[in-house]
Amino acid sequence: MSKFKTNFEQFSIASYLLKWTLYILPLAFAVGSLVAFFLWSLDKLIQLRFAHSWLLFLLPVAGLIIYLLYKYLGKNADRGNNLIIDEIHEPGGGVPIRMTPLVLLTTLMTHLFGGSAGREGTAVQMGGSMAAFWGKRLNLSAADMRILLMAGVAAGFGAVFGTPVTGAVFALEVLALGRIRHDALLPCLMASVLADITCASCGIHHTKYHIDFVSQAGGFSILHTDLVLLSKVILSGVAFGLVGYLFANLSHAIKNYSNQFIKQEWLIPVIGGAIIIALTFLLGTEDYLSLGVAGKNPDSVTIVSCFSAGGATYFSWWWKLLFTAITLGTGFKGGEVTPLFFIGAALGNTIAVLMDVPIDLLAGLGFIAVFAGATNTPIACTIMGVELFGANNLLYYAVACFTAYYFSGHSGIYTSQKIAVSKI
Amino acid sequence: MSKFKTNFEQFSIASYLLKWTLYILPLAFAVGSLVAFFLWSLDKLIQLRFAHSWLLFLLPVAGLIIYLLYKYLGKNADRGNNLIIDEIHEPGGGVPIRMTPLVLLTTLMTHLFGGSAGREGTAVQMGGSMAAFWGKRLNLSAADMRILLMAGVAAGFGAVFGTPVTGAVFALEVLALGRIRHDALLPCLMASVLADITCASCGIHHTKYHIDFVSQAGGFSILHTDLVLLSKVILSGVAFGLVGYLFANLSHAIKNYSNQFIKQEWLIPVIGGAIIIALTFLLGTEDYLSLGVAGKNPDSVTIVSCFSAGGATYFSWWWKLLFTAITLGTGFKGGEVTPLFFIGAALGNTIAVLMDVPIDLLAGLGFIAVFAGATNTPIACTIMGVELFGANNLLYYAVACFTAYYFSGHSGIYTSQKIAVSKI
Repeated sequence: MSKFKTNFEQFSIASYLLKWTLYILPLAFAVGSLVAFFLWSLDKLIQLRFAHSWLLFLLPVAGLIIYLLYKYLGKNADRGNNLIIDEIHEPGGGVPIRMTPLVLLTTLMTHLFGGSAGREGTAVQMGGSMAAFWGKRLNLSAADMRILLMAGVAAGFGAVFGTPVTGAVFALEVLALGRIRHDALLPCLMASVLADITCASCGIHHTKYHIDFVSQAGGFSILHTDLVLLSKVILSGVAFGLVGYLFANLSHAIKNYSNQFIKQEWLIPVIGGAIIIALTFLLGTEDYLSLGVAGKNPDSVTIVSCFSAGGATYFSWWWKLLFTAITLGTGFKGGEVTPLFFIGAALGNTIAVLMDVPIDLLAGLGFIAVFAGATNTPIACTIMGVELFGANNLLYYAVACFTAYYFSGHSGIYTSQKIAVSKI
Repeated sequence: MSKFKTNFEQFSIASYLLKWTLYILPLAFAVGSLVAFFLWSLDKLIQLRFAHSWLLFLLPVAGLIIYLLYKYLGKNADRGNNLIIDEIHEPGGGVPIRMTPLVLLTTLMTHLFGGSAGREGTAVQMGGSMAAFWGKRLNLSAADMRILLMAGVAAGFGAVFGTPVTGAVFALEVLALGRIRHDALLPCLMASVLADITCASCGIHHTKYHIDFVSQAGGFSILHTDLVLLSKVILSGVAFGLVGYLFANLSHAIKNYSNQFIKQEWLIPVIGGAIIIALTFLLGTEDYLSLGVAGKNPDSVTIVSCFSAGGATYFSWWWKLLFTAITLGTGFKGGEVTPLFFIGAALGNTIAVLMDVPIDLLAGLGFIAVFAGATNTPIACTIMGVELFGANNLLYYAVACFTAYYFSGHSGIYTSQKIAVSKI
């Protein structure tokens, strides 16, 4: 790099970017539109379940149908996000396009009948499988297919949460623990920005979360940082990381043990659904079912309510964690990320009360940091904090997410994520 | 990663982090304090030069003294940032502690006599060489010395600009083009946060820059993003990247050609100083000397003035680029980053006028994106945008920085930066 370059490589860079713009435009429009349809339907179905509580009793039946759909029509689509990550690392049999309708339909079923799950898995899988489909039409080389798959992931993530910059960085950071490679930096950003614009122009509004807290240096007034608060944020980061670890390992354990001990595979989702019904009655609340962004009643525990005093009980985080680990561990579909937001925000609410810290700050930090720990994406989650909550508390976002990243250990919800750089 | 972990690795992670906290605390305090002293002196000396314009005439003499200091006392300290990057990649002869007093003294001389240079190189070199010194005292292994060096870089960068999160990410991203490795993620963040707190508690205030512009979707009112503005930002990003490329290659070219054609090495800084004096008189302005953050007169072109209409001339960016390339290319000391901020903000000002875009927005984008292009650190610079200007225009920061990153090609101001992942 030390010599004065005589060949002006910028021309080939420009033509490379132009090529990718053309490849990505149709993909981003398609993914953005489909995500918009998904979010719209999801909202309608959740409202429908609120109106008809008895739908929950059909959850075991829904689980059985989901099982049968994937068994007879799914091929390898059942592997979901992990299949896409694998195909990005090393091209194999490809990501089948049937993944798109299957994951869309089964996620909607999961939510209609009250399974506790999220959205990002669905959006990422639709993005990835549509990218694979489109890449095959374009006859892309293996190297280019890799980039298009990453762009598909970025498009799905960026559109589903309305966070385009996070979508791009997440698609690069999630592939391997401990590393961001900048290949596909602009293709991913293009895809997530365009998909987000498309989704928003279909009329989708994303939930707004607010951290009103603005740091003002406290005890040691010569400092511009409140060291007491900083220490509390570090401790919370440890807790967020441990809970991310707990979630990842509990989901895997439920999946592994149920496969091991329940010989009739079709029984697994049926039992899973039955346990969710039983837990709901045991706790006497529907708050931990489905997405958790909107609540059935004004006093429901939701992600939004966790940002206010009294918005969560001491153990809300644990119940949401358990409901979600059972739902996803026994074969229902949807993402892990929105439940992780819920778990984190609820845990933040609890910790804030225990440690006397502003609740909205800790709920926001938990929201991003449990996710950072469970998926090993600390930089993407720090940026997500900025996209969702603004810049005021950037330092605390970074401290919480980086700390949670360390304390989640070398596990994570995506079993296909490689370990590129060990944490210690 | 798929198996349920039975050994609870979090204990070893906690003890690892505790160890690094103890190693880093004294380093961060030392670096933060020294950076505070550096910034305080720099400010005094710049005011002194404003009061005594004749100091500029001594620039060639200052250059000669700097040359002699490094020739007879410098050992390999002359390699500056590149030496530190090399030592992080592969431990060699180490970074000598003499680098700290040398770079501090010679940077202050460069600024006192009007050389156009920055601050970050000085802070990073003080951080790196003090880390090496401290690491030797601690008898660190090669692997741990690597981490401490990165932490030293993060501490210097975070403290000198008051941007701790950027400091940590920059230290990881600058090492190799196209990659962030998360080793040392928390050690770097600790170091830069603590150094920044130390520096601020010494009473140092960093210049505040403002982008008041808040995007409101324009022409296509169903969209939440202004596509016209977005396109203009992309075009500006291309220009920022090309100018980053121009700066890196012009500095290298001046250095290489002067070494090739001027046989008496001591003459190089003398001639460099003389050219700066000549250019100053030719242009009839002192605006492109020294740091460029504060101006001698109320109507001086400075980084701050570039954020307002009429705050820069059409070619301010070019003159600052030329002044800095000559200053640093002929052996004066200081960083490249503050001049890159100036060049970018001035270019942004010019482009904003030509393309009818809000001036403060484009000045801010140029500020971070020329730097992103010249150092190949697009993610760190996007985060810097948030730390300096707030979250409102995050999408534009990312678009400008990522685009500039591509269009600066595979060159950069740090010749020791490895190419880890090709841009196309």
